[in-house]
Amino acid sequence: MYRTHNCGELRLKNLNQEVTLSGWAQKSRDKGFMLWIDLRDRYGVSQLIFDEQRSSKELFNKAKSIGREFVIQIKGKIIERSSKNLNIPTGEIEILVSELNILNESKTPPFTIEDASDGGEELKMKYRYLDIRRNPIKEKLIFRHKVSSEIRNYLTKLDFIDVETPYLIKSTPEGARDFVVPSRMNQGEFYALPQSPQTFKQLLMVGGIDKYFQIVKCFRDEDLRADRQPEFTQIDCEMSFVNQEDILNTFEGLIIHLLKSIKNIEVAQFPRMTYEQAMSKYGCDKPDIRFGMEFGYLNEVSQNKEFNVFNSAEMVVGISVPKGNDFTRKEIDNYTNWVKRPQIGAKGLVYVRCNEDGSYKSSVDKFYDQEDLSNWAKKTNASKGDLIIVLSGEVTKVRAQLSALRLELAQNLNLRNPNEFAPLWITDFPLLEWDDESQKYHAMHHPFTSPKLDEIELLESSPGQVKANAYDLVLNGNEIGGGSIRIHDKEIQALMFKHLGFSEIEAKEQFGFLMNAFEYGAPPHGGIALGLDRLVAILHGEESIKDYIAFPKNNSGKDVMIDAPSKLNETQLNELSLRLNSIE
Amino acid sequence: MYRTHNCGELRLKNLNQEVTLSGWAQKSRDKGFMLWIDLRDRYGVSQLIFDEQRSSKELFNKAKSIGREFVIQIKGKIIERSSKNLNIPTGEIEILVSELNILNESKTPPFTIEDASDGGEELKMKYRYLDIRRNPIKEKLIFRHKVSSEIRNYLTKLDFIDVETPYLIKSTPEGARDFVVPSRMNQGEFYALPQSPQTFKQLLMVGGIDKYFQIVKCFRDEDLRADRQPEFTQIDCEMSFVNQEDILNTFEGLIIHLLKSIKNIEVAQFPRMTYEQAMSKYGCDKPDIRFGMEFGYLNEVSQNKEFNVFNSAEMVVGISVPKGNDFTRKEIDNYTNWVKRPQIGAKGLVYVRCNEDGSYKSSVDKFYDQEDLSNWAKKTNASKGDLIIVLSGEVTKVRAQLSALRLELAQNLNLRNPNEFAPLWITDFPLLEWDDESQKYHAMHHPFTSPKLDEIELLESSPGQVKANAYDLVLNGNEIGGGSIRIHDKEIQALMFKHLGFSEIEAKEQFGFLMNAFEYGAPPHGGIALGLDRLVAILHGEESIKDYIAFPKNNSGKDVMIDAPSKLNETQLNELSLRLNSIE
Repeated sequence: MYRTHNCGELRLKNLNQEVTLSGWAQKSRDKGFMLWIDLRDRYGVSQLIFDEQRSSKELFNKAKSIGREFVIQIKGKIIERSSKNLNIPTGEIEILVSELNILNESKTPPFTIEDASDGGEELKMKYRYLDIRRNPIKEKLIFRHKVSSEIRNYLTKLDFIDVETPYLIKSTPEGARDFVVPSRMNQGEFYALPQSPQTFKQLLMVGGIDKYFQIVKCFRDEDLRADRQPEFTQIDCEMSFVNQEDILNTFEGLIIHLLKSIKNIEVAQFPRMTYEQAMSKYGCDKPDIRFGMEFGYLNEVSQNKEFNVFNSAEMVVGISVPKGNDFTRKEIDNYTNWVKRPQIGAKGLVYVRCNEDGSYKSSVDKFYDQEDLSNWAKKTNASKGDLIIVLSGEVTKVRAQLSALRLELAQNLNLRNPNEFAPLWITDFPLLEWDDESQKYHAMHHPFTSPKLDEIELLESSPGQVKANAYDLVLNGNEIGGGSIRIHDKEIQALMFKHLGFSEIEAKEQFGFLMNAFEYGAPPHGGIALGLDRLVAILHGEESIKDYIAFPKNNSGKDVMIDAPSKLNETQLNELSLRLNSIE
Repeated sequence: MYRTHNCGELRLKNLNQEVTLSGWAQKSRDKGFMLWIDLRDRYGVSQLIFDEQRSSKELFNKAKSIGREFVIQIKGKIIERSSKNLNIPTGEIEILVSELNILNESKTPPFTIEDASDGGEELKMKYRYLDIRRNPIKEKLIFRHKVSSEIRNYLTKLDFIDVETPYLIKSTPEGARDFVVPSRMNQGEFYALPQSPQTFKQLLMVGGIDKYFQIVKCFRDEDLRADRQPEFTQIDCEMSFVNQEDILNTFEGLIIHLLKSIKNIEVAQFPRMTYEQAMSKYGCDKPDIRFGMEFGYLNEVSQNKEFNVFNSAEMVVGISVPKGNDFTRKEIDNYTNWVKRPQIGAKGLVYVRCNEDGSYKSSVDKFYDQEDLSNWAKKTNASKGDLIIVLSGEVTKVRAQLSALRLELAQNLNLRNPNEFAPLWITDFPLLEWDDESQKYHAMHHPFTSPKLDEIELLESSPGQVKANAYDLVLNGNEIGGGSIRIHDKEIQALMFKHLGFSEIEAKEQFGFLMNAFEYGAPPHGGIALGLDRLVAILHGEESIKDYIAFPKNNSGKDVMIDAPSKLNETQLNELSLRLNSIE
């Protein structure tokens, strides 16, 4: 037996017990006549003590030979520490070692295995297995397990069935790019890895499974933006005989349960906001509502004056930055430069200082008097001491710019408290989205999303205005999930395909098996999919997902630890009847 | 709201309640003046009643229009049935319908949605979503969910952490064939889908995760034998600071827990048998021990007589078939033909009838007298009324043949009771296996399996005799899992590679990142992987896995429902820089 206890569980109550421990030598402190080793395993750290008086010479010398990250096993007796460390749970005791066994040596690790380590990002990815030994990463993986366990148990209690859907499926040219898998048994043909189990979960509803869930890997071959992974994990759910309200309540319950069971935080009923309201108030469909700074629309009170920039703008819109009047000129200049970066793309910003004496001082004092500015303050809800920042331009662009600036300001002003959780539902998404490139509408969610039934007639006259029974779950400014009620009626489905510009033949080719299934009694159904990687990160108070994934890939889709992807040998290519184009 | 109750929960205690139900019209019985519809959902069936007296004419006619598998919603009042059906839980009540709403129509399904359906295998696969509506399939999927939930909760309680390992990994030419995934971002390079997360779980142990599990899809591009799937699900586990005993106890506990919690069956400690014992007693390393018929070795008592077939055989071995003397001559002939089939490959069989009067009658009476046959009976443990069947030939072949015959006999004699569970451990597998083709030894499990430390010196002199710390879990004649203690010492690992015929460079090329990791303090560790698909099937009393998988593939690796794999279009191929060989 390698151990009687782990390195995290020993306390004063174990005094005088003989124990066996195994673990890694985290560090030694050698005082010449006395030597301490911190022994670490997953569960904690215990202090080992050796000294000239009480340890044999052989043992003492062996202890001195132990290097960082050596794997050792010891036997010894629990004794009380003379100088206690109350910062760690085992800090009142130490183990007087009587036997020491080196289980494995270690080269000096390329970075220290400490909470605050010295390694760079790339080195840590290459030696990910060592990075995982560090508490911050290890705890994130344990946290992820807790979250997924709670999710499974919650949904299981509600009678959801975890059904595994296939990974080797069929490629569809619509939507994002598939990863494909050449078939050897069916030469010249390919499987695709699922971007989501969407069609399978709908087929399970046709199959009467009633409530389905799965925590499942999905794959998308897209150029990777920062913090996007080619493989990611989805909490995928579908329910039958439900309307939108049933789904929102069920999954609101899930998030409330997670916050309570994992963070011990109580949240009330989630606010709901339509897509239009969110766009209008916050300029985006995943607003962070932990803080205010709602949009104030200023066209009325800023146009038809001398200021041509505003006069010619489609939209003039501002936000009030709380206590922003404290900003120095330099800080304001920095924000001006920030919005002018190509990623944001504004031409500049207009600001109004709201002085403590009730007066205003703006960057456009030439064009606007105190009364004008006081109207702006009303529209943006600005008080004395605040700073109003105003952008102008095309509606879509200016909303996106101001929304980005709002988040940047909140970040810098510490208004985005990671220990505060502000979930909300965004509902009533548009059904269709106009695509300039193909000059046609395409489905904002997917072609099986149900339109609001009372707006169906608008499909003919103003398709862009039809709203869908589609919803997103937003948490702290991140979309953590989305879904919709699906179309189960074949006539509405045909109408949708028509408006999406599919001929009957095209629709059949791409969605044939699902449409076929829908001929045999599809129940009303709908669902949702939540991104597990991001949900876990946010619940843990972070936004970057990478460290919540045991072995993530880098931004080129590479695993630098195992060196994947890599070349195949000729035999493998021949068996698949594949050749590579123009590659040596 | 589509329903106030489901179709399986209404009882006499709900009498006079107004309820709303939704579901599928399973069947109607039309008596002219009265009409019943069985309404089905996942949870059960409720009987709806309409009649000329109590239903409006409009409602009554609408009810008559409902076809099989129409999706309907009804409102009505619970009344007591006049003729009760006590075979179903809802059989004491029926619902007098007041409102009927057709939610969706259905074409006549290609086979009946009944427990005993009329559809052929291929049709059912094509319309799998309809097959899933049938109780037998639906219940298997629900059962699978129960098993996987119990597994997760059990392991979670034991402090195992569920860690997701990547699906896009690196191809290794060793072992079975990988499915590969061309990379678009790294043209000319490929990912591979994991055959198992073996290396990642070992890296997690190096990373200090201590106890890992995952229920995970694995992929193997092999020619499919019956009941093999290209993608299958594994319960993958690994533990640190453990020896073989710790692992056997932990997973014995898991199986005991599953049998108790799911089947309410108590099993005692599992028997253990070495590989050698199993091969000797049963001729195979996954014996079904629900019944006897252990091998009796007859060389001593059958050779050096006049019967040349036995004299020239390397091994003469028999089993005693309980009550086998009742077999007719024709039945024995059938078994003779059965063992002569090419799949078995025996030349014939010798039999001995053990008569009730203590005499013997054999097919080789010309060569053996009653005393000889009485010795055979002793060796095979045959009693009066039994039949001894004897095969002869080369050791490896004759054991396999007799083992197959033993199972066939047991099957026909109903000795393989699917409600009886006889798990056992097979231990001490050989470390190495001689491969005739490559004329070298290769690892029986994998190259990281630890040899028995006290047999390491045999590696030089007689490598085939060295045993490994490797074990299989066998249940009712099926291998449901296997694993080993891994090598964590780099010198032993180097020795292993040498004996496997790897040069240092080859070893580095193929296992470099794992060997690298092992330089930084790998703990002693080991693990196991269980096949979930088969475990679930066996626990449910079946051996075929197909119906425990929601959407299985056929023997050509095709999903006939969605028609995968399929051709890619030119754009997709070009983006991947791939061309197809010689395919139109």
